[in-house]
Amino acid sequence: MTAIAILGHGVVGSGVAEVLRMNADSIAEKAGTALTVKRILDLRSFPDLPYADLFTTEFDTILQDEEIRIVVETMGGLHPAYDFVKACLQSGKSVVTSNKELVAAKGDELLKIAQEKNVNFLFEASVGGGIPILRPLAQCLAGNEIEEIAGILNGTTNFMLTRMVQDGMDFESALKLAQDLGYAERNPSADVDGHDACRKICILAALAYGKHVYPDQVYTEGISAITPTDVHYAEAIGRVIKLVGRVSKHGDRIQCMVSPLLIPEENLLAQVGDVFNAVQVRGNAVGDVMFYGRGAGKLPTASAVVGDVIDCAQHLAERKPLGWSAGDPAYVMDHADSESAFMLRFEADDHRTLIDALDAVFGEVEVVGCGGENPRELAVLTDRISERKLSEGLAQLGQQPVSRLRLL
Amino acid sequence: MTAIAILGHGVVGSGVAEVLRMNADSIAEKAGTALTVKRILDLRSFPDLPYADLFTTEFDTILQDEEIRIVVETMGGLHPAYDFVKACLQSGKSVVTSNKELVAAKGDELLKIAQEKNVNFLFEASVGGGIPILRPLAQCLAGNEIEEIAGILNGTTNFMLTRMVQDGMDFESALKLAQDLGYAERNPSADVDGHDACRKICILAALAYGKHVYPDQVYTEGISAITPTDVHYAEAIGRVIKLVGRVSKHGDRIQCMVSPLLIPEENLLAQVGDVFNAVQVRGNAVGDVMFYGRGAGKLPTASAVVGDVIDCAQHLAERKPLGWSAGDPAYVMDHADSESAFMLRFEADDHRTLIDALDAVFGEVEVVGCGGENPRELAVLTDRISERKLSEGLAQLGQQPVSRLRLL
Repeated sequence: MTAIAILGHGVVGSGVAEVLRMNADSIAEKAGTALTVKRILDLRSFPDLPYADLFTTEFDTILQDEEIRIVVETMGGLHPAYDFVKACLQSGKSVVTSNKELVAAKGDELLKIAQEKNVNFLFEASVGGGIPILRPLAQCLAGNEIEEIAGILNGTTNFMLTRMVQDGMDFESALKLAQDLGYAERNPSADVDGHDACRKICILAALAYGKHVYPDQVYTEGISAITPTDVHYAEAIGRVIKLVGRVSKHGDRIQCMVSPLLIPEENLLAQVGDVFNAVQVRGNAVGDVMFYGRGAGKLPTASAVVGDVIDCAQHLAERKPLGWSAGDPAYVMDHADSESAFMLRFEADDHRTLIDALDAVFGEVEVVGCGGENPRELAVLTDRISERKLSEGLAQLGQQPVSRLRLL
Repeated sequence: MTAIAILGHGVVGSGVAEVLRMNADSIAEKAGTALTVKRILDLRSFPDLPYADLFTTEFDTILQDEEIRIVVETMGGLHPAYDFVKACLQSGKSVVTSNKELVAAKGDELLKIAQEKNVNFLFEASVGGGIPILRPLAQCLAGNEIEEIAGILNGTTNFMLTRMVQDGMDFESALKLAQDLGYAERNPSADVDGHDACRKICILAALAYGKHVYPDQVYTEGISAITPTDVHYAEAIGRVIKLVGRVSKHGDRIQCMVSPLLIPEENLLAQVGDVFNAVQVRGNAVGDVMFYGRGAGKLPTASAVVGDVIDCAQHLAERKPLGWSAGDPAYVMDHADSESAFMLRFEADDHRTLIDALDAVFGEVEVVGCGGENPRELAVLTDRISERKLSEGLAQLGQQPVSRLRLL
């Protein structure tokens, strides 16, 4: 028998307890030992649960219990999760977490402590919820140099964009629906402004390239500026708008950003609808592979946590070879240097003159469409140019677009 | 430095040598040791290769070399691959193989030897080529009871079906194109008759449910009977024809088969085109997850082999917890008991009478379409019925359909 503690009995934590009970027999067989939840830390009490007697409000009860070898952290947020996880690792317990904020902020430090103490710190559930992605990336694809990762990493915004594309909703209506269905928080900023996706692409980047990437190093743009007109023009060029986190290697440095992207309809990422997530990885041997599934939710996320717990139980005496070095400021390329093709929408009375001016500044642009409900409307596509060239060109032009969207 | 031998310098074997050289630095970093190919077994000589001096025609040279700790088997076929792999495991070397025929026929026995000798026998490349699927299934999804696996497991037939659906080709033209492009063998039976997909679903089933499934226990139907008319009627009901291997658990037994299936267009599996493969796994906690990528080819398959080799090198002193028990004849349910909804196409002069007779035998059937180029044509959908009920009903009806296709 291996004793486990769970820190935080919220959606994911209670899901972990449920999966461990629901699949206890097959889990014991795979782990080679029964996995028993011995303590659950939560400030609330749950007197009606069959395991009500496991609850404690004292973290030290768990920390000082030497029988507890594996601690599951599902509290979320940085504090006190960071302090608790650090203390557990330092006292020789393995830790499994679903907390992307913690891993994105402190992954390098916590992995180092785990290494020093010869215990495991695993976090499959922190990216893509139930989708197996971190372990396949670190192990199955270890023979590859990873050229690029592009992922739909946030289910809430993908649900909203799906409604905007399929049902013609505007941003506000899609947000309200997501909130009514419980997919979005009352304060939706972490989702709609891209911060959640940013933490996840930081974790993927660190794992793929062996060096920590801090969220504040990553240009992050959300979906709140997307309008039905953007959706309309995207459709006109056979593309679908998705919020994508992506990272690629360029010599010793990486390009990393989160932003809405126009994805060709025939790319499988464009087909990923509703709350589903998907991560596309391009390796120099394997080519493109994609991982798809539920990126959030109680049991899917618990599935990933329990997979890690089983792995810890199988390797109590041995550390998994997993780690990355601390980040540094020069490692992530300046956003101004990253290149994309852009769809730019302008409002102008004289389209011919504007097109000529755009051609002069950006090289020949391709006109996607004009007019429609608003006769002043003009949408064009540029070639691949850097963010810097785009800004400089627009300044030179003396005209700012109504919207700018990058193409994948 | 860890010394490796490669058995068979064909497409995959030469790819393994190439990936190990191409990505040598990053592989050494991840493996914690340089991985060096010391010997390659092949009856041919390759005097122009930079590593021509590594070749040998004598298996014993490799077997008796104690410095060689990891052997890659990429010969294919059962013999002599089986004898060589068995001898390597028995002499305490870890073995990595891409040989699905070997794993499907002898996996239980070889895993048992590996366990006794405390070495690893890994075969990620045997299913889905470069796609990470076996390790995620065995580890990341270990917290789940696996309810069902359904996969497009053969790239050649998926390429052919894609041409038949998108370009209106018939089976013979699609086969000829696949042969011209090098996707299909001169003797295409292993692909088009479903044997290759069968071996792969056997391996997935064994891993998911812990018990060996032998290919001759699995009902296997290929794609050679599919006609443009089938494709036309599939489209009419919003479905796409794919060759699918699937397995599901029913109490202590499994249902397992390979056959063409009509997949709803909105299911991501329906979007998997050309030579790509995809495997959908449904777990009782995670829901549906899907893994997608290139299911064959030199470097993609080598990517999976090298991932396994790195894993072996990281765990030379310790065996991965991977294994399953021997199979037994009663474990796979009788095909006659498996249930599907069917699309049946008949030729008849009097459609009304036939529909009434079908309703009487199968309960109410849904008419999909009739007439077209052939006015005698009639296509209907049944409810879910067992294969036995279908056969008995058709016998009772006194009329055999021109084609029968199962729905996913």
